[in-house]
Amino acid sequence: MKIAIVGASGHGYTAIKGAKQHPDVTGDIVGIAPGSPGESISAITTYLEREGFQPGVFDHWQEMLVQCQPDIVVVNPHFSDHEQIALAVISQGRHLFVEKPIALNMLGFEKIRACYQASSVELAAMLNMRYEAAMRTAWKAIQVGRIGDVRSLHVQKSYKLGTRPDFYKHRSTFGGLIPWVGCHAIDMIAFLSGKAFLNVNAASSAKTNRSHGDLETSASMFFRLSDETFATAQVDYFRPESASGHDDDRARVVGTKGIIEVRQGKCLLLSDDCGPDDRGRLDSNEHSWASAVELPLAQPASLFADFMAQCAGIGVCDITAEESLDNTRISLLTRESADTGQQIALSD
Amino acid sequence: MKIAIVGASGHGYTAIKGAKQHPDVTGDIVGIAPGSPGESISAITTYLEREGFQPGVFDHWQEMLVQCQPDIVVVNPHFSDHEQIALAVISQGRHLFVEKPIALNMLGFEKIRACYQASSVELAAMLNMRYEAAMRTAWKAIQVGRIGDVRSLHVQKSYKLGTRPDFYKHRSTFGGLIPWVGCHAIDMIAFLSGKAFLNVNAASSAKTNRSHGDLETSASMFFRLSDETFATAQVDYFRPESASGHDDDRARVVGTKGIIEVRQGKCLLLSDDCGPDDRGRLDSNEHSWASAVELPLAQPASLFADFMAQCAGIGVCDITAEESLDNTRISLLTRESADTGQQIALSD
Repeated sequence: MKIAIVGASGHGYTAIKGAKQHPDVTGDIVGIAPGSPGESISAITTYLEREGFQPGVFDHWQEMLVQCQPDIVVVNPHFSDHEQIALAVISQGRHLFVEKPIALNMLGFEKIRACYQASSVELAAMLNMRYEAAMRTAWKAIQVGRIGDVRSLHVQKSYKLGTRPDFYKHRSTFGGLIPWVGCHAIDMIAFLSGKAFLNVNAASSAKTNRSHGDLETSASMFFRLSDETFATAQVDYFRPESASGHDDDRARVVGTKGIIEVRQGKCLLLSDDCGPDDRGRLDSNEHSWASAVELPLAQPASLFADFMAQCAGIGVCDITAEESLDNTRISLLTRESADTGQQIALSD
Repeated sequence: MKIAIVGASGHGYTAIKGAKQHPDVTGDIVGIAPGSPGESISAITTYLEREGFQPGVFDHWQEMLVQCQPDIVVVNPHFSDHEQIALAVISQGRHLFVEKPIALNMLGFEKIRACYQASSVELAAMLNMRYEAAMRTAWKAIQVGRIGDVRSLHVQKSYKLGTRPDFYKHRSTFGGLIPWVGCHAIDMIAFLSGKAFLNVNAASSAKTNRSHGDLETSASMFFRLSDETFATAQVDYFRPESASGHDDDRARVVGTKGIIEVRQGKCLLLSDDCGPDDRGRLDSNEHSWASAVELPLAQPASLFADFMAQCAGIGVCDITAEESLDNTRISLLTRESADTGQQIALSD
């Protein structure tokens, strides 16, 4: 598959890593161009060369698409440019691997969804948490019934703020903490629960953001889901800089037959039905989890590698185009709840 | 202090334990009576004798109050009887140590509040979590600025369902999971944040409650607090029966200078400012907490012992009457949000 990359402000590097990870499909990265005014692509170009790719380097992404005729376009410029580039890529009939949120407002989202529905391209958003080993392990355990029916969920994402690029400082170019970070929590709720989203109440605050302009540093979300199920989520940029590791991502899923938890890259199952196949009991000092087992982690996998296989017609990736699009829709409406203080309906 | 106990369906045993725990005030438990039709007091009477008390045992609490003339009355019958007994106790000018929720509906709450405000008695609800060592440790660390300004909180309470008494099976006698269990989460949010409650959105479900009638098995809550702060909470009765320990209580408080967490009876502080006085770094395998310290736990204390001292005029307990009352008010309004699906204002 011929792959071109537009921009260097998101998680495009996951496509570079994934391009060589599928056993039956090989990706060649043939072009790279900035996607936003003033966006530097030097770091990602150096990384591409180190990984053995020799892409054409272009000043303008439009020219690159004409020259390279890529099968797949990886889109990760400043977030306010996702929309126009995504529309161009789909309109040209190229497969789209796009940073989230796919658009920064509902009008843009509706345009992209309509454009996608009128096309025959493949589309996936960079919701990579579905491919993290501990989250996949939790998902698989839930799928095979280890916790019975899901009743409630809580998801946490806690990040270091560090120093963010200037475009993070403006709602108009960044979009907000909820669409950028909260979207992952929303996706984990969708992925792990399998329930439909009914409505949302949310809040966010930009207090104490160390001169980062509009950038919110904390947000909380509350979702009523189908089947009398509900979820809460919290995201923040207050993880201390001296902490080891950038993030502290967690998920806890309460089911009728057990409770599953992801934290510190591990997947823990608390259940009356832990069997001999489970990997031994946890340290009894952790008294709350004395009946818990740490599940063997699922094999690592790559969202982009699976997406390439899907584009090649020989596989599927674990997030559909519809799920990718709906994540942006729900994220934008959650932000609206935080902005207005009102409950927002989420049924589509 | 002369103490009488009405009922045996809540946490009255904490008063029995606390009656001998204050260095300067001694409590004598002089009477015990049921507070609800059919309520058995045999277990608590046996416990009282084992603890060295020789209370008069009465069939009717009204008679007990006349005969014993107690200074303090401990009220913990079936929850629907809190209201009438609390009103009688306050009206007689006796100090009230009462199980929460203090009333099961807003009308009853308003009556009790008005009665209290017209009296000169002391009043505390059995919100014992303020006195748990790890929670006190967290509170003290927050008070001295270890995490800066509080920005968000999440509180969890996960309990085993087991087999509950029949009065749990009816909303009219039990009141609901949010007033009974959620109230503790609400109190921890109030205690640890020091913020005012602005509004709430909540949900609850009685699904899969193993023949417990109306009893809800899960609830989620979302609170907007003053100062652009917010909190989420989740409570459930899905803790597996084989897990060691009845509950899995947690709190996580995110501040501008650090994050503090209570779980498994420990209090963990993650901060850039952990100093040499802190008790050593945690196991580096816990990578998310590699810069965390486990704080030395605060000395155990007894809410009831402090309440006795307050009644004797020589001390104060760590929950005021106003906080005790407000916890019931907020808990009942949170239940209303769960029942109606609507956002409910909480400003008083």
